[in-house]
Amino acid sequence: MYKAPVEEIAFTLKHVTGMGQAMEEGRLGDLSGDVLDAILTEAGRFAGDEMEPLAEIGDRQGARLVDGKVVLPDGWEKLYRDWIAGGWNGLTAPEEYGGQGLPHMLNVATLEMWNSASMAFGLAPTLTMGAVEALVAHGSADLKSKYLAKLVTGEWAGTMNLTEPHAGSDVGALRTRADRHNDGTYRLFGQKIFITWGDHEAAENIIHFVLARIPDAPAGTRGISLFLVPKFLVNDDGSLGARNDYFAHSLEHKLGIHGSPTCTMIYGDGKYGDERGAVAWLVGEENKGLACMFTMMNNARLAVGIQGVAIAEAATQKAIAYAKERTQGRAPGTTAFGMSPIIEHPDIARMLLTMKALTQGSRAICYACAEAIDMSHRDAGKARYWQERAALLTPIAKSFSTDAGVDVASLGIQVHGGMGFIEETGAARLLRDARIAPIYEGTNGIQAIDLVTRKLTISNGDQVRGFITELRGIADAVAKSNLDGFGQTADRLNAAITDLETASEWLLAQQAEGHVAEALAGATPYQRLFGLVLTGCYLAKGGLVDIADGDSEKRIALCRFAAENMLAETAALTDRVVTGASSLEAARIALA
Amino acid sequence: MYKAPVEEIAFTLKHVTGMGQAMEEGRLGDLSGDVLDAILTEAGRFAGDEMEPLAEIGDRQGARLVDGKVVLPDGWEKLYRDWIAGGWNGLTAPEEYGGQGLPHMLNVATLEMWNSASMAFGLAPTLTMGAVEALVAHGSADLKSKYLAKLVTGEWAGTMNLTEPHAGSDVGALRTRADRHNDGTYRLFGQKIFITWGDHEAAENIIHFVLARIPDAPAGTRGISLFLVPKFLVNDDGSLGARNDYFAHSLEHKLGIHGSPTCTMIYGDGKYGDERGAVAWLVGEENKGLACMFTMMNNARLAVGIQGVAIAEAATQKAIAYAKERTQGRAPGTTAFGMSPIIEHPDIARMLLTMKALTQGSRAICYACAEAIDMSHRDAGKARYWQERAALLTPIAKSFSTDAGVDVASLGIQVHGGMGFIEETGAARLLRDARIAPIYEGTNGIQAIDLVTRKLTISNGDQVRGFITELRGIADAVAKSNLDGFGQTADRLNAAITDLETASEWLLAQQAEGHVAEALAGATPYQRLFGLVLTGCYLAKGGLVDIADGDSEKRIALCRFAAENMLAETAALTDRVVTGASSLEAARIALA
Repeated sequence: MYKAPVEEIAFTLKHVTGMGQAMEEGRLGDLSGDVLDAILTEAGRFAGDEMEPLAEIGDRQGARLVDGKVVLPDGWEKLYRDWIAGGWNGLTAPEEYGGQGLPHMLNVATLEMWNSASMAFGLAPTLTMGAVEALVAHGSADLKSKYLAKLVTGEWAGTMNLTEPHAGSDVGALRTRADRHNDGTYRLFGQKIFITWGDHEAAENIIHFVLARIPDAPAGTRGISLFLVPKFLVNDDGSLGARNDYFAHSLEHKLGIHGSPTCTMIYGDGKYGDERGAVAWLVGEENKGLACMFTMMNNARLAVGIQGVAIAEAATQKAIAYAKERTQGRAPGTTAFGMSPIIEHPDIARMLLTMKALTQGSRAICYACAEAIDMSHRDAGKARYWQERAALLTPIAKSFSTDAGVDVASLGIQVHGGMGFIEETGAARLLRDARIAPIYEGTNGIQAIDLVTRKLTISNGDQVRGFITELRGIADAVAKSNLDGFGQTADRLNAAITDLETASEWLLAQQAEGHVAEALAGATPYQRLFGLVLTGCYLAKGGLVDIADGDSEKRIALCRFAAENMLAETAALTDRVVTGASSLEAARIALA
Repeated sequence: MYKAPVEEIAFTLKHVTGMGQAMEEGRLGDLSGDVLDAILTEAGRFAGDEMEPLAEIGDRQGARLVDGKVVLPDGWEKLYRDWIAGGWNGLTAPEEYGGQGLPHMLNVATLEMWNSASMAFGLAPTLTMGAVEALVAHGSADLKSKYLAKLVTGEWAGTMNLTEPHAGSDVGALRTRADRHNDGTYRLFGQKIFITWGDHEAAENIIHFVLARIPDAPAGTRGISLFLVPKFLVNDDGSLGARNDYFAHSLEHKLGIHGSPTCTMIYGDGKYGDERGAVAWLVGEENKGLACMFTMMNNARLAVGIQGVAIAEAATQKAIAYAKERTQGRAPGTTAFGMSPIIEHPDIARMLLTMKALTQGSRAICYACAEAIDMSHRDAGKARYWQERAALLTPIAKSFSTDAGVDVASLGIQVHGGMGFIEETGAARLLRDARIAPIYEGTNGIQAIDLVTRKLTISNGDQVRGFITELRGIADAVAKSNLDGFGQTADRLNAAITDLETASEWLLAQQAEGHVAEALAGATPYQRLFGLVLTGCYLAKGGLVDIADGDSEKRIALCRFAAENMLAETAALTDRVVTGASSLEAARIALA
């Protein structure tokens, strides 16, 4: 059913983000537009033909724990092996470790396709890629040489172990203990929960990146270290040795992503090995684990944002197809015989266009974030600019896109009417899968705090101010284009950008005056405001591209729809940012 | 876990709607405030103690089809029998048929509690009550004497059979055939889908109300008749006779309400009886079935709205309880030791207050709708006013409340963080259950069409204009109250009411000029706009009540939160109603 929107993805990469220009400038190695298209086409084929047909069985069977082993849904082990055989896992990994050294922009584009086909499956590579990044950035030469090549191919899988029952958003509260051992390694003891793809048999080995606390470490986040814990110890010749002392104790029974095994992990219980304690190697320095973990988490946040885009794309495709086929009633003004396809009813068209605008807007935001990450490494003259832009865009990409994923999936159900509530239709699964994305990798509320307190304040707000100036440029270009199809777009964009400016300056001023609670009360509305403004601007940017792909008219019309039907919300959001805090504080008594 | 909010419900009935005044005026028979409180208290006890403990098993086991029989989840048959033994089924039914003749206002209040405890279970009485209403209004004396008493007690259950594979929102497209039989009865042949509580063993007999078409009937909605089809034929002495020729062919595998058997029904397949055809009796006149069905559907729409309120209440309670207990991080400004309860974080408080405001707002809207239905029968001097008000409020009660149910349940998951995605927590089930309510009994898009084309236009718009004048009165009363706690409430309410006025007049003008498509493009935004304005006004009305219940301050603070944090959206909605249509039409090319 899912057909990868290869052309749309390529267009967004090349023209809405600056990948086309970057290729021309030679910043992306020998990657050319044709090669890019070929890679995207093949990824789309794999996602649509190989992966998506196994999504439903994955949802229905789920991952199961049988005799202490995690059993994936039927066909998923082979799917995983076929997928790594295609070389997809190492797309962006360094070439010296067997990767292809391709840009993140390309990786998020393919990640989108895997997640549209099956978000539960797409999680596996997401985690492994994060592990590769952490190891590249922080691992010792020894650890790199022992683990990286196999993680890059995907023969070995990687995981992140952060959460504990009492330490979720508050990672600093974790209790897993890492005792120093006399050979320079460590022994881990403790329990981790919500470990995505924590165990399975699809990969020969699983390499866990675990946050733990060394006994004499300082309290809180300053006393956390990052450890590498392999499922099977690795001998010096690279062969696999003894089973390490940890195990997947149980799997969660979740609302969605059933095919993804979400494990509770017990470390150091003595189930394996002669002496208790999971053998662990330090990654980076002692007590600097959180910084290392953020290397994984920042890219993971973008990867979760991409899940929102992916679900939105899949839900939109499914709903449009249904709305064209299903007939009910007669649309106003129709002269055709019999019942009308429901897509002709204005309210159905309104839902589908909203879905499409949110999908394309959130895609552009995520790709722009990937562009900033790439360029921070590949555009030396503007490295700081790009680093700041990536930092700013990350929480928006994560939160706006995952909220869009949920909203679009829910609208998708609504378009299907009663059929949407029936599991066989598949629309409901998309909502069930999507619902975790606003929660994990830092809840969207945490993202909003990050955006307001750490990102908006970059360079005293000048990164955001500069961004706003760039966005004004898009609005101006729309005005100057004199294209009738844009309707009121220029005015609407300018009004929305002004709202963003007002809210940004107010939040900066509040924080400068030490009014943190007041700023935080408006953090989530601000985050949505930023995402909506970017949606409008990026849709406009796409509409302004003058290439003979025949879709310009469609892009302009969708942009106008977003501008005239969706952007008026920015005024309400800014109002909420600027005036909402005091009534929120006062109303706390109503929660007592 | 769920504790029925008996005091809040009683307050809303007595003071936000006019039940207190109606009792004083003697319009509700001998019902007194004390009796009302006693009934609500007992209903709350049953819902919380007897029903809610069986909700989770109902979700987990679901209804199953075993050897041709529908098996309810463990304990549910007994629960049903205990529930009807409590006399709850006949609360509003006429006393001459064994009912208690109590007002609808009381019935929706108890329905709210059943649905908070288990929406899947609460559906059963909802359908039976609809059947009672249809029979009372349209049944022959013979049918009434044979069926009503048992339907009123709930010993027999009732269902509605409307939908067919090609006839959902478009009921006129249905094909089920009703052949005239020489004894004055009919024989039914056809397939019906999505039949809620279509079959089970909890009741001795099941009485189906089925829409079908007599062979020589006109096409479309004017050729539809309503039939009564009992599962077991009823002998003249009231004893049960032969099994009628229909059966539940299969059950749907749904996103939620798993305990509720959603059946595909086959009529006239020859499975039972000597000759094919399900024996059916005409209800009302031939070809006037749709009007009869609307008797059931209007109240059913309100009952579905109540499901939204019910889920919102349950989700809010659960989230507040979790947020008080769960600790993570440190809230801004806290001086306490250790981690803060997450309810202290502004973003969590924002979510919980939004949930609470939507719950109380949608409750007030639904109760006001029930009041209008009651008063249309009990306030002869203003019968037309009340009929019109009930007609106007019905689509808003259905749509705004069910959207609120979904939104609040989704926020409830978010407040729970990762735990919200785990089924055992129960937060996810509320979202899964809630998601059907915006779809069935007429999708919320259909409600919006009804609101704009048939309800707004009542008396050329004067019903809405009169309502707006009443709402202005509430805003004025807030202004005159001089209570500081209301903050900017009066101004915010007035601005929102002006938005409603603007949108209403624009929609009336468009329709007067024959611009139906333009009006329909804004129907859903208008519907939400109306619901938001009513939410603000009803919260204010509650805040203005000066009784010594100690909660006035809380009510005022919650109202202010809604006014200052939620009502700014009305401007965006009005903008969308007034200017959104042309860009929507233009953007249709983007869906091609």
